[in-house]
Amino acid sequence: MDYKAESIKLHRELKGKIEVVPRVSVSNAQELSIAYTPGVAEPCMEIHRDVNLSYVYTRRQNLVAVITDGTAVLGLGDIGPEAGMPVMEGKCVLFKTFGDVDAFPLCLRTKDTDEIVRTISLLAGSFGGINLEDISAPRCFEIEKKLKEICDIPVFHDDQHGTAIIVSAALFNALKLTKKKIGEIKVVINGAGAAGLAIADFLLNFGVKNMIVCDRDGIICEGNEKLSPVHKMISKRTNFDHLEGSLAVAMRGSDVFIGVSGPNCVTKEMISSMNSKSIVFPLANPVPEISKSDAEKAGAYIIGTGSSQEPNQINNVLAFPGIFKGALSVRASDINFEMMKAASLALAKYIPQEELRLDYIIPYAFDKSVHKAVSEAVKQAAIDSGVARI
Amino acid sequence: MDYKAESIKLHRELKGKIEVVPRVSVSNAQELSIAYTPGVAEPCMEIHRDVNLSYVYTRRQNLVAVITDGTAVLGLGDIGPEAGMPVMEGKCVLFKTFGDVDAFPLCLRTKDTDEIVRTISLLAGSFGGINLEDISAPRCFEIEKKLKEICDIPVFHDDQHGTAIIVSAALFNALKLTKKKIGEIKVVINGAGAAGLAIADFLLNFGVKNMIVCDRDGIICEGNEKLSPVHKMISKRTNFDHLEGSLAVAMRGSDVFIGVSGPNCVTKEMISSMNSKSIVFPLANPVPEISKSDAEKAGAYIIGTGSSQEPNQINNVLAFPGIFKGALSVRASDINFEMMKAASLALAKYIPQEELRLDYIIPYAFDKSVHKAVSEAVKQAAIDSGVARI
Repeated sequence: MDYKAESIKLHRELKGKIEVVPRVSVSNAQELSIAYTPGVAEPCMEIHRDVNLSYVYTRRQNLVAVITDGTAVLGLGDIGPEAGMPVMEGKCVLFKTFGDVDAFPLCLRTKDTDEIVRTISLLAGSFGGINLEDISAPRCFEIEKKLKEICDIPVFHDDQHGTAIIVSAALFNALKLTKKKIGEIKVVINGAGAAGLAIADFLLNFGVKNMIVCDRDGIICEGNEKLSPVHKMISKRTNFDHLEGSLAVAMRGSDVFIGVSGPNCVTKEMISSMNSKSIVFPLANPVPEISKSDAEKAGAYIIGTGSSQEPNQINNVLAFPGIFKGALSVRASDINFEMMKAASLALAKYIPQEELRLDYIIPYAFDKSVHKAVSEAVKQAAIDSGVARI
Repeated sequence: MDYKAESIKLHRELKGKIEVVPRVSVSNAQELSIAYTPGVAEPCMEIHRDVNLSYVYTRRQNLVAVITDGTAVLGLGDIGPEAGMPVMEGKCVLFKTFGDVDAFPLCLRTKDTDEIVRTISLLAGSFGGINLEDISAPRCFEIEKKLKEICDIPVFHDDQHGTAIIVSAALFNALKLTKKKIGEIKVVINGAGAAGLAIADFLLNFGVKNMIVCDRDGIICEGNEKLSPVHKMISKRTNFDHLEGSLAVAMRGSDVFIGVSGPNCVTKEMISSMNSKSIVFPLANPVPEISKSDAEKAGAYIIGTGSSQEPNQINNVLAFPGIFKGALSVRASDINFEMMKAASLALAKYIPQEELRLDYIIPYAFDKSVHKAVSEAVKQAAIDSGVARI
């Protein structure tokens, strides 16, 4: 199937993938008087007296902004805010379809981190949550950090944390099948951008002790003065043997490979150099670090990719709809680590131990009840961690 | 009917008056591959190559942002952004119901004019038009002016121009019934905020020569050093007799009274002091400058109010949905005077001469074909005035 041509055709015909529709009829004077003037003055004044009532009387209670500056759209790079919109609209479709969360896309005409932070903070009163999307690293880290400090609503950067949540869930189940323990495995992550660093942080928090992160220059090693500030930070938490060299050096004797980098940068030899029962997630899209068939031929034991055409699809849509649904359901002020951890564990546990197979370590995205399981777990974690506001 | 209680009940039950819904199904991997990754990369790259294609591939082609800072919501004043949201959501419902225009509400957490301008300009790539709403005067004038200079999409402040368009349409038809000529009438406008000044400007452009504008201190007269900058400007275009004093002084011998001020500031005596066949539009809401019955008793010949319970309702919903629909249909870069004039004339002409009555000078808002008439007229005016882009 020619996805490109089909997609152009579909987008032309659709005239936008989302639509804003009324939830109320205003077809006569009486209806208008209740939904609009003069009646509407009363909910307005109630919110004026207690701003928390904005979650009762307006759509904010179920509404997320999907916000980008267009600097890191898919694998396409800095294509600008308008060009990023088809992806953002698509994301909003996924929010509603899988999480019953209303989502609205906003593409900002600025790349200035302070201005992005300020703009989003000014909009925060109109939404119940903020989903940052496709903002280039390392800017995305600063933007997310500042927004989390400033905003009274949850802020979540899906490219970072969504990916980390799914990868972790898949890894937990893969470890069950390989009978390896998280504290004993050696994990190699290739790609030290938004996704790679978030996966590293997440897995370290989950108990991985032996980890090597690589970027395009090879292994990230403490003491290298050329490292960027965020790479310096991760260098202090990984690679305690101070290994230097290429990705091939890193992968030797490893148990897990996670690629969030670019196409075809992993060879069959590198896979063969891994430990037995190796877990290989080459997630670059549309062309992975190594094809599934090559990884298999080289001896990879469990393989997960980003492709919907293959089993074990590591697909972000498994997490963000349920995460925001859970957070919104209790008016959470944040999406914190406890909530993300709960989402990841819920995804892993969704497949009963006896149903786990080498080609079934992560739930199918189109199974609607998985999103419900995620939202329930996240809701409970929000309550338990003290960020729920109802 | 207790509109207040009914409105609270409705808003509680609705959980938001608008909803963001998908226009496309993503219920299996193939659909997802076309609407989202990997297929979506293609419309993205097309827009990257030609940003005008954002109007072809995304919802922008039919999408308006309804934006406020919450400083002048209804007659409630500065109640803040969150408290303004029920009105903004209501406005979005009207856009879709009457104009088939998607509209999304954004309430900004700032009152700084420069910051409002900057924020909206950063969002302009996500919308096809901007409807400013309930921003206090004189800040609204500066914000609108700057945005019109900066933005490549139409910007319209409904409280100003929408009101002016409807009032003018009603006045045109009232003049037909009274057989008075626009160049010969004396018009008094009470209230020199956003609506009053816009009505004054609009009617002057339409050929009114004898006009007096009053604010709470009485007649605005050239040479008064205490006048604000915007009032100084209108003082140079009105009141050429340099009349001074109260509203009562202004109204003596006038043909038209237009009130966009506050409750009960006009007496029966003032109405009686007007010329015969007087046209009286006390538009303050919910309590007008003088009640319809008192105005009638005092001899007013044609009366229009803001109330849906009375004939001749001067209701902004008659204009903005059709105006934006017309502008969006040709990707207009602006909503200029020619387009607003066309909207006003289309509204007036919508009632055939032979159907005009003292209590039927302006179309009913719930007559759906009136919005179509407005949009067609606005579309043609956009083309004729050179701001259409397709």
